[in-house]
This record gives sequence, C-alpha cells and structure tokens, in this order.
Amino acid sequence: MDAQNMIQSLGTEARKAAATLAQSSGGMRDEALLACARAIRKSKPSLQEANDKDLALSGEFGLSGAMVDRLRLTDDRVESMAAACEQIALQRDPVGQTIAAYNRPNGLRVEKRRVPIGVIGIIYESRPNVTADAAALCLKAGNACILRGGKEAINSNLAIAAVLRQAIKAAGLPPATITVIDNPDRALVPAMAQAQGLIDLIIPRGGKALIRAVAEAATIPVIKHYAGNCHVYVHGQADLDMAERIVMNAKCQRPGVCNAMETLLIDSAVAKQFVPRIVASLLDAGVELRCGQLAEKILPIVDVSEQVLKEAADEDWYKEYLDTILAVRVVDGLDSAVDHINTYGSGHTDAIVTESIQAADKFVAAVDSSSVMINASTRFSDGGEYGLGAEVGISTDKLHARGPMGADDLTTYKWVVTGQGHVRS
Amino acid sequence: MDAQNMIQSLGTEARKAAATLAQSSGGMRDEALLACARAIRKSKPSLQEANDKDLALSGEFGLSGAMVDRLRLTDDRVESMAAACEQIALQRDPVGQTIAAYNRPNGLRVEKRRVPIGVIGIIYESRPNVTADAAALCLKAGNACILRGGKEAINSNLAIAAVLRQAIKAAGLPPATITVIDNPDRALVPAMAQAQGLIDLIIPRGGKALIRAVAEAATIPVIKHYAGNCHVYVHGQADLDMAERIVMNAKCQRPGVCNAMETLLIDSAVAKQFVPRIVASLLDAGVELRCGQLAEKILPIVDVSEQVLKEAADEDWYKEYLDTILAVRVVDGLDSAVDHINTYGSGHTDAIVTESIQAADKFVAAVDSSSVMINASTRFSDGGEYGLGAEVGISTDKLHARGPMGADDLTTYKWVVTGQGHVRS
Repeated sequence: MDAQNMIQSLGTEARKAAATLAQSSGGMRDEALLACARAIRKSKPSLQEANDKDLALSGEFGLSGAMVDRLRLTDDRVESMAAACEQIALQRDPVGQTIAAYNRPNGLRVEKRRVPIGVIGIIYESRPNVTADAAALCLKAGNACILRGGKEAINSNLAIAAVLRQAIKAAGLPPATITVIDNPDRALVPAMAQAQGLIDLIIPRGGKALIRAVAEAATIPVIKHYAGNCHVYVHGQADLDMAERIVMNAKCQRPGVCNAMETLLIDSAVAKQFVPRIVASLLDAGVELRCGQLAEKILPIVDVSEQVLKEAADEDWYKEYLDTILAVRVVDGLDSAVDHINTYGSGHTDAIVTESIQAADKFVAAVDSSSVMINASTRFSDGGEYGLGAEVGISTDKLHARGPMGADDLTTYKWVVTGQGHVRS
Repeated sequence: MDAQNMIQSLGTEARKAAATLAQSSGGMRDEALLACARAIRKSKPSLQEANDKDLALSGEFGLSGAMVDRLRLTDDRVESMAAACEQIALQRDPVGQTIAAYNRPNGLRVEKRRVPIGVIGIIYESRPNVTADAAALCLKAGNACILRGGKEAINSNLAIAAVLRQAIKAAGLPPATITVIDNPDRALVPAMAQAQGLIDLIIPRGGKALIRAVAEAATIPVIKHYAGNCHVYVHGQADLDMAERIVMNAKCQRPGVCNAMETLLIDSAVAKQFVPRIVASLLDAGVELRCGQLAEKILPIVDVSEQVLKEAADEDWYKEYLDTILAVRVVDGLDSAVDHINTYGSGHTDAIVTESIQAADKFVAAVDSSSVMINASTRFSDGGEYGLGAEVGISTDKLHARGPMGADDLTTYKWVVTGQGHVRS
C-alpha cells in the first residue's frame, strides 16, 4: 500500500472514531484514561521488552548517547506515563464548555461552545512517552489521533499503542482513537500533512529540520514549535540575590532544553553591582560568556582577564545554544530590553526580574512572547509546570494555541444558536 | 518600489503601530473608534465623491449590476459604517481578559491572558464598507491592519482610510494602525501572504478563486472562508408550520449569500405531511427543486407533474447554488441527516427543526459545522446577528476561529507567570 492510500485508510478509521468521541461523555473518556493508566502499569514488562528491541537497534541507527537515553523506558518513565493519564483524567472536561453565551434582543440564544477538533496528527522523534502523553491529551479533548514516531522507537511506540487501544476498547470507546503508524516509509509524513478532510491539524515535535519539512509540505494547519531563544532581563529595580538565583537556574539547571536562558540582559542601572558577581558565578559553573560591547561595558567593571570573556557577534543574539554558553548584554532601560527581545527572540519564554509592578506590567504588555515570567526562571515554561498534566507541544505560533498546549488547546468551538422558529427579516 | 519592498516598508510601520497598540488602554482605543464614527459621518460628502470616481470606472472594469450595487456607498451604508464603529467601541475590551488563572502548588501564579495578534492583513473584494468594519475590529482588539481591497473600490477605500487614520491620530494612536494599499499591483497579494515576521495573519474575503490563490501562496497563517453549503433538516418531531417558515426564509429571503440554505433534508417520518406543502410553497416562490430519488420518494406523495421537478445528481449535494435552486432529500432519521451533512456540507451553518431536546442535542454534537441552529433560519449566521458589531469574516476553518469572527477572534493569548524568585529543581 502506498503512503497516500495508507493515510486514507487510517484517516477514515480515525474520522469514524472522532465522530463517536464527539458524542461521548467526559465521564466515559475519563474512565478510558484511567483504564489506560492501569493498563500501562500492568504492561510494564512487555513495554520494556519492546523498548529493549529498540535499544538493541540504536547502534544501527547511529543514535548518540543522549538520544539513547531519551529512548529508554525506565521504570520511572513507564510510571510517569501512567500518572500523566491519571492527572489528565482528573482535569475538568474541556468539551462542551461554554466560552460565551447570551440572548440577542430578538430572543435568539447564541452560545459559543467548545468541541473537539476531530483528528490530530502528531509527528515526533525518539521519546516514546510522547506516544502516551499525546494520545491521552487527544482522548481527553475528544479527538482521535494518528501518531507517527521515529523509526528508532517504533517497537516501543507500537507496544504502547497496543496497550492503550485495548484499554480504550474495553472502556467502550473505539480503538481507532489512537493509531500508531507501523510503517517507516518517509512518504507518510507529507501524506499526513496533506490529508485534507481526514486530519484536521498536524503537530510536529522534534528538531527544526523535521518541523520545517512538515510545515513546507503541509496543506492542512500545522502548529509549530521552533526555537527557544529565551531571555532573562535583570531590571534596574531587581532584587539582585533573586536575580542571581534565577539566572543561574535558567542557564545551568538543564541547558539543553528549549526553555533554558540563552541571553542575559542586564540593566545599566545595576550593571556595576550585578555584572561582576554574575560573571563570576557563571564562569564558576563552567558557562562560556559572549558579551556585547565587551571592552566598553563589561571589562571595565569585572575582575576577570579579557581572555576568559568573548565578544558577542550579532548572530549570537539569535542563537539557541542548548549548551553552557550564554550571550550577555548591558541594556539602557526597559524599552531597550524589550527591543532586544522582540528583535532577536523567538517568542518562546522571556523573564524579567524586578521589584517594580509598573516595570513588570510594561514588560508583560510589550514583550511579544508566548510565556512571560515575572521573578521566576524561564525553566518553568512547560505543560507539567503549568498544571496541564502533560503537553502535546509548545507552540511558538500565535494562532490557535500559544506556549505549552494541553487538552483545552486541542479543542475548537462551534456556535450553537437556538430560536423558537426565528426567521430573518 | 517592487511588491516585496513595499510590503516590507508598510509592514514595518504597521509593526511599530502594533507595538504601541499592544500597550494602549481599551479606553483609548474606544475613544479612537468613537472619533472614527464621528469622522465618517462628517466626511460623508467626500467619501461619496471618492466613491463616485469608482462608480464612474465600474464600466471599464466590467462590473456586473450586483457588483456595482455592492460598490455603492449610499447614505445608509456610510451611516452603518459609523454605527458599526460605535457598536464596536461599546463592546467590552477583549485585550487583557483572563482566559484562565490559577496558583500552582509551589506558589507560582499562572495566567492565560488575551493579547492582540499583532498585524493582520486583509485581502478583499468590492464592498468598501469592509474597509471600515475590518479596521474597526482590528483596532478594538489592539491590532494594526494592512488592507488590500480590489482595484474597483480603490478611491473609496483610500478615502475611508484617510478619514480613519486622521481620527485615530487625533485620538493619540498611530495612524499606521490602518494602512490601505494604494497600488493595484497583483504581486502585492503573494507578497502580503509571505510577509513572515511582519504580518501575523491573513484573512482573505471574497470569491473562492481569491481565497484559494491567497491560501496557496501563503507562508503565514490564513483564516479562510470557503463555501456555505447550508442545510435545514426537518426532524420527525418538528412543528411543521415552524419548519415551513424557516425553510422559506433560509432559501428565499436572500438566496445569493453564504448563509442561505442549499439543501433541505426531510425526515421520512414527516415526509408525507411535509413534502407536498413545502414543494408547493417553494415552487410558488419560484425555486427550482432538485430531488433525491425523485420517482421513489417524492413523486408518489406530491400533487405536481413530474416535469416540474428535477432529479438531483450526486454533485447537487455539494453545490452552493447562491440562487433560487434547492436540493431536496428525504432521509431516514437523524443519523442519516447527520451523515449527509457531514459528507456533503461545507461546515458553515446547518439547522434542525425539532421539538425534541434529545434530537437537538444529538444534532448539535454530531454535526461538524461552525454554526448549528436549532429552530432558527440559517440566515442568522453572521457577525451582526450574533452581536459582534461587525465581522471580519466567517471562518470555515476549525483552527483559531470558527464561524463569524469579531474582535475576540482577532486576539491570541500569552502565559503570564509570576513568582517570588522561583527556580526549578
């Protein structure tokens, strides 16, 4: 079967499942999620057995050590898949929620009501727990999903899907609620992204190359997650102890992830006090620093030999290092900080450290990013920390969903208009 | 200046205006809208003078009578542009609204807050009142807009924009909030649809060919309005007098618009009583009828010669006639009606006439359309009737906005996270 026929056939089954899900009660979907949690825990040995097959092949696929680590279904990771299903089951049902409702002067009742989107396609790499998390969020919101994971995790993904499908079926909902594609054919990716009328939305999760390839091939809507070039701005009225804790956490706690800080902006009002101590702490932690106007603004106030610090090039302000490297710039006031962020940032997550309510409010209104943090580390920007149970991705798009996406973001709405025989004159 | 440079230059100005608007108060934006209303009323003579220039050229552009009619800025239309600005000013401010807000167990405060989208591009045809309506809705929601109308209305559109820009400037907001492109170069349409980083969203309004051309060229998000293939389903428990009023209104009150009914579905349970009377009324009103299973299901129960009725072809079920033509089908129960609508419909607006709450609920959940009507004519599906003041379009997409789009639909949100020095462990 060629790619298009395969998607046609799987998509048709998924659409039927979506039609059933659109009419299912939230209680039934929650029961299915709890059944999934129990089934995952019970199936741990068989899931890990399937995972072992993938791990055995990881050398053949040339996976790096970090990638092999992400692929591994440890006891903790199996448990956290089950726990995510339970947490998601406990959330309130987004389907059927009233977004707005009012009566018109002519007596017509107008309501904007949340409904499932339909069929969601998710294209992702390596981590097999995405299979369970994404499927659980889609089910919560009444959607069917078609999942296309990487070939390096195919045995794990298929084993997880088999467990979930059986649990969902036993709970009285259609097993085609979850489909994992068992075919490594690359042509399936564009076929999914062009499946108009069958798939309503594609969410790619993975590296930039994957996301770009999906977005370029797509004729159906795509919600994308590009770079996380996150900033921390230490304002002139910052508590500098707090600022240091936040900066160190945002850069060093896990440098390889999208919500780690990549550029530090320091207000010139506190540069003399703050630059020396933060430079010392960051260098101590093994962070390489690339500084704007190194000779003019940094070297005169630090007690560090100039060999240790590097001058930042213009392209450094755009970079998502995902490493222990940090760009540093002294800025003249809040407007300059905002300008820098809106010019070079990626609209992911940007933080201000300040004791001033006015400065915080202005920063929140002016920075055009999906998450804006006040006196908190950028590292909090994710679905788990926001209480979404899990996330189906972090959107750096502005349309439909922005930032970490939970079950609510997997819904659309319909207008429900009720009359008593109303006709228009 | 070539098309790309022109959009680059206009887009840069619009982005600056959007940055100012994002930090403006709702009161200031409402003042600007009221100033626009006053300015439109005061400028009626000069607006109509500009409109006369377009009308004088309409022959040259080969406009049909209906198109010339749509182009004309009558006294009523000028007044309704002003009234729409006032109505929109009186709506509550969507910007800054809290969509969700909660504290996390660690004390972090998480808020999902409505913010403007940024810069919105609107590409449209003929009716010059779209210029004022779209600009007013964008301003209400804190967005700048770049408007590209048709060449046949260019003098009217530029005159309206000049009046609005002056009023907005006098109210203390940037005139680049509204830009009407004064150049008829066709290359500007794809240039707008590819202006990544400058324009955040494109809304095309017009015929299918225009919408398709924009959607195919676009590399930025597009919200589309394709066909309005609307259905009325007369359920087995319908009040047949009400059903007749609704059917006649949905088909005949204004057949050329997207929310007019194109297919009538009659439940077999009431076919014997309802088909003869509705066929007679529709024929009386000059409607041409194309019937499914004409010989089997319709002719035996009507008192009409078979020459008057036509057999429907399969393609009739897909058609948006926009004319006094109606496809008619007898269906066996609610599930068959839903199947028909979800198979052939365009997801625009579909109505059920029924006295049964259960049937209404099931229809609402099962029909996958942007507007679902219960005991009301499909003709109510528009922004004015839904109380949105005006509409920037009717989306038949499922993502971001669905159905008539008002100011709320021209916003996105950002996550605002407030800590007291929170770092992640």
